[in-house]
Amino acid sequence: MRCFVPFAVDTPKSRLAPVLTPGERQSLATAMLVDVLDALATAGYTPTVLSTAPITDDRVTDRAAVTVDDRALTAAVNARLAEGTPTLIVMADLPLVEPADIQQLVDSEADISMAPGLGGGTNGLVVRDARFRVDYHGASYLDHRQAAAELGATIETVDSRRLTTDIDEPEDLAEVLIHGTGMAYDWLVDAGFELDTTSGRVGIQRDE
Amino acid sequence: MRCFVPFAVDTPKSRLAPVLTPGERQSLATAMLVDVLDALATAGYTPTVLSTAPITDDRVTDRAAVTVDDRALTAAVNARLAEGTPTLIVMADLPLVEPADIQQLVDSEADISMAPGLGGGTNGLVVRDARFRVDYHGASYLDHRQAAAELGATIETVDSRRLTTDIDEPEDLAEVLIHGTGMAYDWLVDAGFELDTTSGRVGIQRDE
Repeated sequence: MRCFVPFAVDTPKSRLAPVLTPGERQSLATAMLVDVLDALATAGYTPTVLSTAPITDDRVTDRAAVTVDDRALTAAVNARLAEGTPTLIVMADLPLVEPADIQQLVDSEADISMAPGLGGGTNGLVVRDARFRVDYHGASYLDHRQAAAELGATIETVDSRRLTTDIDEPEDLAEVLIHGTGMAYDWLVDAGFELDTTSGRVGIQRDE
Repeated sequence: MRCFVPFAVDTPKSRLAPVLTPGERQSLATAMLVDVLDALATAGYTPTVLSTAPITDDRVTDRAAVTVDDRALTAAVNARLAEGTPTLIVMADLPLVEPADIQQLVDSEADISMAPGLGGGTNGLVVRDARFRVDYHGASYLDHRQAAAELGATIETVDSRRLTTDIDEPEDLAEVLIHGTGMAYDWLVDAGFELDTTSGRVGIQRDE
């Protein structure tokens, strides 16, 4: 099955601005993308990065083809879905994802198989119904369920913590420090981040 | 396998104070407990609520035995583990949990099987090594991994979004509104909560 990983080259991960500079956010976003590409490759897929701009970083270009489409996420993905081929779409900010999680998503025989993100996004998606289109705005998982139901398509939801854990907010970085083993984990440790267990839900602190 | 669900009767869910009164927090906490008890019963287990005080609410007493132990969570659980019998411990604030998730946790043949929570807590735990003791403070998932490793015990981590989703903070309520189907979901809807998709990660708003 063909596989796309959408990636925004410019100003990625803006909600991490309280703890990371723009350059750091771009670097961490690339590290997370690499973790996702590695999981896909180990699971047996050949991903294409669907990027808003050319990518020259060879950590990425060594691992995947890059297709540039400067439209917004929803339009760029829908252009691929309109081609009518079964397609796997995995978000680039899932540094905990493992090959087994990808396989679980694809193993579903439903027309539409989804892994929701925290807050109701759609982190992983397999589309086998050529009529289905995405809309990534807001609680897209619920919108995608409704869209699939309106088509009469079968739906399956994959229950995976690792596919759920998208990294958007500073507190999400704690999940990488707790569970990560890949390039994003190494990046955070090298940048001086560590767990802060002093109050309430475990957070992060930076040693500078 | 015997099964305990720890429950704090007094002032539960204090981090929900920004959006719920003390009485509401107690009511929602009870609804979440009932959802957990129902999942356990459907999975074939007979849970005992390990409560800090007597419970009279028949939604609970109709579903489970209640054992009162007014010690802190860690001490109360360790007193049971010291009895040396294989034990399943499931937290009470997991309203999304389904019977299959419980089964996945128990199906592991490891000495210590764990489902981590958001922020590194230990939401589900199967203990088959009589020497193992819990310490629920902080990032207990990591501490429990280390403790098991020091015993030479085998460890397995279950990858489940539903077991991960513990409800501690106001933003966690969005997960119940997105994915819930049980008593906690009904409670939130009846209380006027709905999803707020106007900015960033999907949140909640209350219609009053």
